[in-house]
Amino acid sequence: MTAARPSRKKAARKAPDRTPTRRPRKTVTVELAERSYPIEIGSDWLESIGRRIGQRLGAGRIALVTVPTVARRYAPRLTRGLTETGARVGRIVVPDGDATKNLRQVGELYDRFLELGMDRHSAVVTLGGGVAGDLGGFAAATFLRGIPFAQVPTTVLAMVDASIGGKTGVNLAQGKNLVGAFHQPAGVYVDVDTLRSLPRRERAAGLAEIVKAGAIWDEALFRWLESKVEAFLDLDPKVVIPTLEWACSIKAEVVARDEREGGLRRLLNFGHTLAHAIEAQAGYRGILHGEAVSIGMVFAAERSEALGFSRPGVRDRLEALLRRAGLPTRPPKRTREAYLAALAVDKKKQGDTVHFVVLEGIGSAGTTSLRPRDILPRGWTA
Amino acid sequence: MTAARPSRKKAARKAPDRTPTRRPRKTVTVELAERSYPIEIGSDWLESIGRRIGQRLGAGRIALVTVPTVARRYAPRLTRGLTETGARVGRIVVPDGDATKNLRQVGELYDRFLELGMDRHSAVVTLGGGVAGDLGGFAAATFLRGIPFAQVPTTVLAMVDASIGGKTGVNLAQGKNLVGAFHQPAGVYVDVDTLRSLPRRERAAGLAEIVKAGAIWDEALFRWLESKVEAFLDLDPKVVIPTLEWACSIKAEVVARDEREGGLRRLLNFGHTLAHAIEAQAGYRGILHGEAVSIGMVFAAERSEALGFSRPGVRDRLEALLRRAGLPTRPPKRTREAYLAALAVDKKKQGDTVHFVVLEGIGSAGTTSLRPRDILPRGWTA
Repeated sequence: MTAARPSRKKAARKAPDRTPTRRPRKTVTVELAERSYPIEIGSDWLESIGRRIGQRLGAGRIALVTVPTVARRYAPRLTRGLTETGARVGRIVVPDGDATKNLRQVGELYDRFLELGMDRHSAVVTLGGGVAGDLGGFAAATFLRGIPFAQVPTTVLAMVDASIGGKTGVNLAQGKNLVGAFHQPAGVYVDVDTLRSLPRRERAAGLAEIVKAGAIWDEALFRWLESKVEAFLDLDPKVVIPTLEWACSIKAEVVARDEREGGLRRLLNFGHTLAHAIEAQAGYRGILHGEAVSIGMVFAAERSEALGFSRPGVRDRLEALLRRAGLPTRPPKRTREAYLAALAVDKKKQGDTVHFVVLEGIGSAGTTSLRPRDILPRGWTA
Repeated sequence: MTAARPSRKKAARKAPDRTPTRRPRKTVTVELAERSYPIEIGSDWLESIGRRIGQRLGAGRIALVTVPTVARRYAPRLTRGLTETGARVGRIVVPDGDATKNLRQVGELYDRFLELGMDRHSAVVTLGGGVAGDLGGFAAATFLRGIPFAQVPTTVLAMVDASIGGKTGVNLAQGKNLVGAFHQPAGVYVDVDTLRSLPRRERAAGLAEIVKAGAIWDEALFRWLESKVEAFLDLDPKVVIPTLEWACSIKAEVVARDEREGGLRRLLNFGHTLAHAIEAQAGYRGILHGEAVSIGMVFAAERSEALGFSRPGVRDRLEALLRRAGLPTRPPKRTREAYLAALAVDKKKQGDTVHFVVLEGIGSAGTTSLRPRDILPRGWTA
């Protein structure tokens, strides 16, 4: 049995320069021809971010879509910068939490856009984690058939994952992200100081996605994390900025080669098959996405060894790093049947089999098509 | 004062072959690189259309989105063809009328898609006029971030206008088509026999958009209509098929050169500035879109003469043809102030001025930016 290995000859990507300067700032470009955009990463520069976005969008009116805690802390500085470029900025605060990502909320955003007098020359800026980005991005994608938007992610997860690739969307009662659009942002702007107000547990959950990038794509990043995991979680800027840059450049490279999710981009789903099942089982409460992905990755590595895709030891090395980040690595105790039922959600989206991402070694992955009962073989227990 | 004339060197387009065969069938290709698609026009071939769409989409499950009258008459034959290619077809009948084109109805479509077990390999087929196409198309554009769809338009308007260009969307309480997405269909398939059940008044309203195509782009089409308008409304297939082909080829050419609505595609808004105001004033009741466009075109031609863009006589020639089609050409009696208020809707979408399409002669148009009070100058009366 062999895994399908999407063509993924890696570009001769220079290892990021990790020499700290007084105020380091890094830029990763997501190459998508005329839809290319920059991810700019720095610290203590929210007001400058506002100016940069204002200049880039050149919009007369801007709706700033954000969530309560973030709005209080960071919206004033960002707004000041945006306003300096002549934009009229209206702040729209949506309740945080994945339950907010629904069609009703999108409808309310449209209403607010119209109240703000927004037209085709207006734009949206999202400030927050995945909820602000996905919801605000989807509203931008569909208001007047699409207006520009920029993202200012304030969680590790949103910085390295949700803000790259142009996926926007909302949940339905029947499942997560069942509705959406591909809509590339005009730019993504990261101020790592916004992570100071992020609970350590959420920093770790975001780090799970960075570990994933190393595991599927780049052993050097994985080794870097093995030496820096604690410094990252403590938000040492000499570690955080280059780590985010590295992770973003990997995701940007994958997305650039496969904007609409053919084979290559599927590798990013490493660990997500079981993660989705765990989240669905939990009703999306009590467990963070990155925590579920951590568990799902260790599971996928275990299955990769069992199915003969990888040599022994890969799973252990992965689990050790995730544990050091304080992440869970074992699935909640439930019956195999319960997990199989939860896998049916992915199955519904993909047909009879599920694209399962297998690890071949640290830094190398592929996909294979499996039926849910082969993913969770008879006798498997959580 | 000169109108901005978007670069619009017309391709050396061969006049369509109008020699009738026993069962003529015409194809117009909308050239959009990897998103190119055919518009196929024929008669008495609904079941074949089903087979063609089924083969083209290659989808396991198809949601057929349609409206009540059309569903009864035409869905069975179309479904038979689709089913022959192995697709499982679920019929979704939505209430007809523009009031149905709303977010709540889109939400219901998503629910039905999930009930039908639709996944990324499923597709949508729309059967009906603009409501079925816009609503079903928007649901297809956003379900699972976009699944393929094909259109089977059954009104003249949908055949030559709504089904070409990939505009999908719904209305908000605040205005028409304020939400939407560009989503190109996999193909558009026309059976002119479906027009037999369309009231003559609606045939004429659709013809208004064909007159528009001739007026802004192609005097030869305009002359053809001057000699065939009654035969078209009587649905003589020797006239209807080549006329639809001709009108579609013009719109396809415009869309191909300007997929996302820059300058050129704006010409298609000829007559629409006042038309939108008339429709908004009427609360979208009692007047068909094509009727409002007919009035708006004569108005725009009149203003084009008054502003010195066109020579005298153009307006009269346009009005004469529209009258022969039985279309209204004079705006409902309302005050200038009422019309100015209604124009504010377009203004909201575009900024302080409105892109107003002016006619320079039959077959030639341009755009100019005007403030509403210059479009409807002091002293103007309906």
